[in-house]
Amino acid sequence: MSSVESEPALIGIDWGSSSLRAFLISASGEVLHSASSCEGIMHVSDMDFDAVFDAMVRTLAGGKTLPILASGMITSRNGWVETPYVRIPTGADTLAQSLVFHETKSGARIHFVTGAMTEHLGRPDVMRGEETQIVGASALDLADGVFVMPGTHSKWVHVSAGRIEDFNTYMTGEVFAALKGHTILGRLMENGSFNVEGFEQGVAAALDAGANLLHDLFHVRTLPLMGKIEGNVTADYLSGLLIGTEIAAATRGLDGAEKITIVGRSDLSDRYEIALRAAGLESRRAPDDIVAKGHFLIARAAGLVA
Amino acid sequence: MSSVESEPALIGIDWGSSSLRAFLISASGEVLHSASSCEGIMHVSDMDFDAVFDAMVRTLAGGKTLPILASGMITSRNGWVETPYVRIPTGADTLAQSLVFHETKSGARIHFVTGAMTEHLGRPDVMRGEETQIVGASALDLADGVFVMPGTHSKWVHVSAGRIEDFNTYMTGEVFAALKGHTILGRLMENGSFNVEGFEQGVAAALDAGANLLHDLFHVRTLPLMGKIEGNVTADYLSGLLIGTEIAAATRGLDGAEKITIVGRSDLSDRYEIALRAAGLESRRAPDDIVAKGHFLIARAAGLVA
Repeated sequence: MSSVESEPALIGIDWGSSSLRAFLISASGEVLHSASSCEGIMHVSDMDFDAVFDAMVRTLAGGKTLPILASGMITSRNGWVETPYVRIPTGADTLAQSLVFHETKSGARIHFVTGAMTEHLGRPDVMRGEETQIVGASALDLADGVFVMPGTHSKWVHVSAGRIEDFNTYMTGEVFAALKGHTILGRLMENGSFNVEGFEQGVAAALDAGANLLHDLFHVRTLPLMGKIEGNVTADYLSGLLIGTEIAAATRGLDGAEKITIVGRSDLSDRYEIALRAAGLESRRAPDDIVAKGHFLIARAAGLVA
Repeated sequence: MSSVESEPALIGIDWGSSSLRAFLISASGEVLHSASSCEGIMHVSDMDFDAVFDAMVRTLAGGKTLPILASGMITSRNGWVETPYVRIPTGADTLAQSLVFHETKSGARIHFVTGAMTEHLGRPDVMRGEETQIVGASALDLADGVFVMPGTHSKWVHVSAGRIEDFNTYMTGEVFAALKGHTILGRLMENGSFNVEGFEQGVAAALDAGANLLHDLFHVRTLPLMGKIEGNVTADYLSGLLIGTEIAAATRGLDGAEKITIVGRSDLSDRYEIALRAAGLESRRAPDDIVAKGHFLIARAAGLVA
């Protein structure tokens, strides 16, 4: 790598609902330095995004003036600047054409990557942030196939040649939290370390031909009530039931030869890998910070870096 | 009706999680008088069931000593006396043989009707109270077919000749409350009167061949976000999506000639009637107080009334 290529050339910011990550990126697209905080858009006091931004960029850029790209829920209605969605199919080129410029109070110049939308039978689906991760994946020899992005609202994204061709959101993570915290199903749950067997039992129930979620959920109550599973396994059974239900629906019609890539290295990604294997599907992992590669490729397509 | 037949012969008590109803029943099985309160087992101070019982029975019996049958969640782990479940198939005869006797602190003698259980692939399902309603329905020329009992945990019960042959619980009502109250889906909801069109749109999405609940739930967010449905319709759309999903699963395999009976006269029952019609299935209504008829038939089978 020449010295020019390793010079800082771009700041990429992934600003989601619950966390904020920023990357100092070189002229060759490598991450030179990164910083993160829990100041996701839901946790910014008085919605003073300028203050959080200034502190984060000052730390990272060390006084240099660099092009800045930001992606994620920061462009949503509850974020800093609400931007319109681009329609799929989309990739680095169309996202570069749709950048939304914003000058901060302190005079910094930000280019917001906007989210993507689709419709199925008139029912919209949306993403903000994942489109940038997908573009990043295309640089990592992960350009084609199906991507699953686990989370509060997990996304299943069909990608061809680095372009998003289709996607669907699943509410799985948020449904899990609501059922565990606010229904009778949480009453018999005890804390415990991750129990693979309990999780796999839930996945198996979800993958069964007779699976029937609104009914099967009641077993999360009756199985421990009848002493058939332990209280400290019950939450993992529920997790398996929900993730298994998502996977059964999302992989219907896949022929098994399709590449499935799980984005992220979290514990949640481990669960998806186990459940996919139970469904007879092999998967591979893409790192979470492919988002920085996405920032770089979109910035380059927009002419912001050489 | 002779004067003997119209004499009080039995007290029947339906003591559920959220309400308590008691019936003064004649020797011919007619309800002579009834009383109700919101003192379901979840709302009894210090679990002092004796005090609530004494006050209710004193009001209803007017000093007479009568046989007393009680059914419902009162026999659950969180109730007064926990009783074992009977296995299906079950009807008035087996429920009569399984009555659990209890003498109260004030010396009253109660016979508890116990709940019923089944297992599918080793996964238990249970009911407490609905078995007595089903027995009651058999006296009303409603002896055969499929019964749906809407509620927090709705029950679908297959009945033949007054006996419960099979049943399944759906968590629909509790899932609705948890999603509305504790997820992002509730954020864009505004109060409004029941909107049939919004409800039917949700039902239609659920009955679609490509229905996919964990994904379709996200439309409860995106449709109002994109201005495609109004905020005051959003809760009804969610309700339709969930009830439609329940009905699609519960009626799979029914041939359309099967009689479907909705138990209850509540607003919730109206929603089930609308959703069943959208699924191409006609239904009829059984009154909620068929439970008193069930108390009478079980008491008679047990020899407690002539």
